[in-house]
Amino acid sequence: MRILGIDPGLRVTGFGVIERHGHQLTYVASGVIRTADADLPSRLGTIFEGVSTLIRQHAPDQAAIEKVFVNVNPQSTLLLGQARGAAICGLVSGGVPVAEYTALQLKQAVVGYGRATKEQMQQMVVRLLSLTGIPGTDAADALGMAICHAHSGDTLAALGGLAPALAKKGMRVRRGRLIG
Amino acid sequence: MRILGIDPGLRVTGFGVIERHGHQLTYVASGVIRTADADLPSRLGTIFEGVSTLIRQHAPDQAAIEKVFVNVNPQSTLLLGQARGAAICGLVSGGVPVAEYTALQLKQAVVGYGRATKEQMQQMVVRLLSLTGIPGTDAADALGMAICHAHSGDTLAALGGLAPALAKKGMRVRRGRLIG
Repeated sequence: MRILGIDPGLRVTGFGVIERHGHQLTYVASGVIRTADADLPSRLGTIFEGVSTLIRQHAPDQAAIEKVFVNVNPQSTLLLGQARGAAICGLVSGGVPVAEYTALQLKQAVVGYGRATKEQMQQMVVRLLSLTGIPGTDAADALGMAICHAHSGDTLAALGGLAPALAKKGMRVRRGRLIG
Repeated sequence: MRILGIDPGLRVTGFGVIERHGHQLTYVASGVIRTADADLPSRLGTIFEGVSTLIRQHAPDQAAIEKVFVNVNPQSTLLLGQARGAAICGLVSGGVPVAEYTALQLKQAVVGYGRATKEQMQQMVVRLLSLTGIPGTDAADALGMAICHAHSGDTLAALGGLAPALAKKGMRVRRGRLIG
């Protein structure tokens, strides 16, 4: 099963593609869709086209996107909402089923700790996918989303973390820190 | 020139199609895209597909969409933003240039009064397009958007209203009320 994770944003939308074979997760691709300083419709069009292109290139079976939270600045909330709407349209019109997870669910599933930092998320993604380089924070969040979805519906998700998958790699997590 | 006006919303998205020949405006179609009580991605997909279908059916040259305002309820703002993003994606991916107007610009252009009520908007749309029936408020706002765009870039817009077009119909407007 191939999963596309999306971390939506008006300026930068992170994406990450992974494959799941049983409990084994494999990295396929990751990066960002950047929008130019154009008018809003053009920027939303760029996000939509970017997601559509990803679907053509990587043919994901499922997608997972972050449930954005309400920002302190209502205007930012409105802009982020529109960016997320554009990304979801790209997924839906590409025929890919979309799951939604909050940032809290993402952090708990990937790092095992709801208040994990962006750096902890990056580290964990590197370990879980055996990456040789560190992805940027937007790409890491998107890969994390894909990992979160890969383990949802599993007992893993019910346990609130990836303990078994990590144990196989000889690692344990305690409050967001890797041990051993 | 054929213009598609959109009044975006998550539950109900109004649309209106008009044609402009010089100062003459002609009604083509109007109505609403309703979303079922499904999950958010499905609802956004319905809006996107609905707008795409309108473009195939009516082949508009240009589109105008309301700039939504920040709601008192931040969660509503976020939902409305996503709905608007979906509608804009439908327009952009259909290759239709998108103009944006605020509710204030809409009311000033169509009714000549920034604090016009929904009923005044409906009445004015009926008169300007010589409709035989009264469109619903969402469709009326969308038709108003199309009218607003039809007159933008004109001296009409600079004058803040449709006085000349109305004068041709033997009407005048004063603080949102039709005279004569």
